[in-house]
Amino acid sequence: MQKFEAFLLDNLPISASIHPVYEDALQEMLKAGGKRFRPALLLGVVKALNPLMLESARHAAYAIELLHTYSLIHDDLPAMDDSPLRRGKPTLHMVYDEVTAILVGDALNTYSFEVLSDAPFSDAMKVKLIRELSSNGGLNGMVLGQAIDCYFENKPLQIEDIKTLHTNKTAKLIAASMKMGAIICGDEELSEKLYEFGIKLGLLFQIQDDILDVTQSSEEAGKLTNNDENKNSFVTILGLDEAMKEANSLADELTLEMQSFDESLHSELSPILTKYINRHK
Amino acid sequence: MQKFEAFLLDNLPISASIHPVYEDALQEMLKAGGKRFRPALLLGVVKALNPLMLESARHAAYAIELLHTYSLIHDDLPAMDDSPLRRGKPTLHMVYDEVTAILVGDALNTYSFEVLSDAPFSDAMKVKLIRELSSNGGLNGMVLGQAIDCYFENKPLQIEDIKTLHTNKTAKLIAASMKMGAIICGDEELSEKLYEFGIKLGLLFQIQDDILDVTQSSEEAGKLTNNDENKNSFVTILGLDEAMKEANSLADELTLEMQSFDESLHSELSPILTKYINRHK
Repeated sequence: MQKFEAFLLDNLPISASIHPVYEDALQEMLKAGGKRFRPALLLGVVKALNPLMLESARHAAYAIELLHTYSLIHDDLPAMDDSPLRRGKPTLHMVYDEVTAILVGDALNTYSFEVLSDAPFSDAMKVKLIRELSSNGGLNGMVLGQAIDCYFENKPLQIEDIKTLHTNKTAKLIAASMKMGAIICGDEELSEKLYEFGIKLGLLFQIQDDILDVTQSSEEAGKLTNNDENKNSFVTILGLDEAMKEANSLADELTLEMQSFDESLHSELSPILTKYINRHK
Repeated sequence: MQKFEAFLLDNLPISASIHPVYEDALQEMLKAGGKRFRPALLLGVVKALNPLMLESARHAAYAIELLHTYSLIHDDLPAMDDSPLRRGKPTLHMVYDEVTAILVGDALNTYSFEVLSDAPFSDAMKVKLIRELSSNGGLNGMVLGQAIDCYFENKPLQIEDIKTLHTNKTAKLIAASMKMGAIICGDEELSEKLYEFGIKLGLLFQIQDDILDVTQSSEEAGKLTNNDENKNSFVTILGLDEAMKEANSLADELTLEMQSFDESLHSELSPILTKYINRHK
């Protein structure tokens, strides 16, 4: 992932602003690091299926990271989760102001599609990737999940609805990252299989986040923890023990499914996933 | 434009939400009307150049209207312009709340690219349209303009910088609408010419808005007027008389340029533009 990080730093959004804050703020959250989990998934799939596509695939991985970063910036806004910390640093509206956080989020959202439209792929491939990113990262994906999350604050949901919430809020973009990797390599059949895998992985990821929220300090997590009491988290609804059981069961299921991947895919994804699949333990 | 309105109503964004507010709110501002100025420009160009493309062109016109509508919703937010009225109705954050207005704006932004990726065009055409919309509607276009507007509130700008502000905030999306019409009809050379024309038209449009802000009541305008004292408007910087002169001079220039259009383009754009070109008088 060093090459991706270098690529990202070489391709940071630049705006010809007559005010310095806007340009700095556009880059701030992208430079702040983060796990780069979605890019790692996409690039892991590409490395396994067709390493020759790796260089162009970085453009798509970057587009996903742009969309993901905008969503963090907007989720942290005072009107939303009102979070002071992200990626171990003050959130954008704390460093600057709300106006900046809203506008930078908007700009990165749109920019993710500009990056895909300019990426070194065939037009047919670009369109497929844009369709995946927009349909999973938009009104019937990530944004819908965030809406459910906000509207049902202080209103406990049934477990099935919590799964709907997090399938949309978290899992669809993770699933799209894996799927887009396979699309780039022209393997449509595998792309569907990886999407289903990614949905489960995303759910596990969220259950783990909920578990770590009550077991980790803010310093360890790099963001405010113990902040979910009024939220529909797997822990607030199921309790910590049951959430742990659910996480273990999903982790086992995913580990088993990974064994059905062919060798190259297994050996690329294993180092990325094993770490995450067991991070709640 | 009746057919466009019907198309829009037939294609409103639908989200499988488990909460009714989100779906209603997604559609609210789109159904609230508005001038549909950008779609009219795109469709006017297409009607003049190749009426057979009109039906598919509506998808592109709709995508632009989606992006434009998201920008209005976010511009009206309390942290931004804090506007209570838009299109003659209460703004989205007044009807619902800030969370809804932020999320619906985000969703419509992303959805505009989903609509283009699914539109009945060749992949090559889709990519061109997506590149135009994202580059003019994003970090070096509309969002940059809004950023300059916000950062220089209460700080008077030179007239050249105000032109930069409004070229980005307003004119680029108007110019892109005309350019995209020509792109759909495969006339790349005309597309560049129309872009330049659209930039001037957008500037005129903004000067007129600034003039109408001080000469119209909120009822006439359908939005809060006399609200620009702290803003860098052409009227606050130039004064009403000079702003009028600037508008008249741009209007004359545009009228002259229109006479250089070939007959079909002139006769399609004339009814749309004459109304606007003279609306400050």
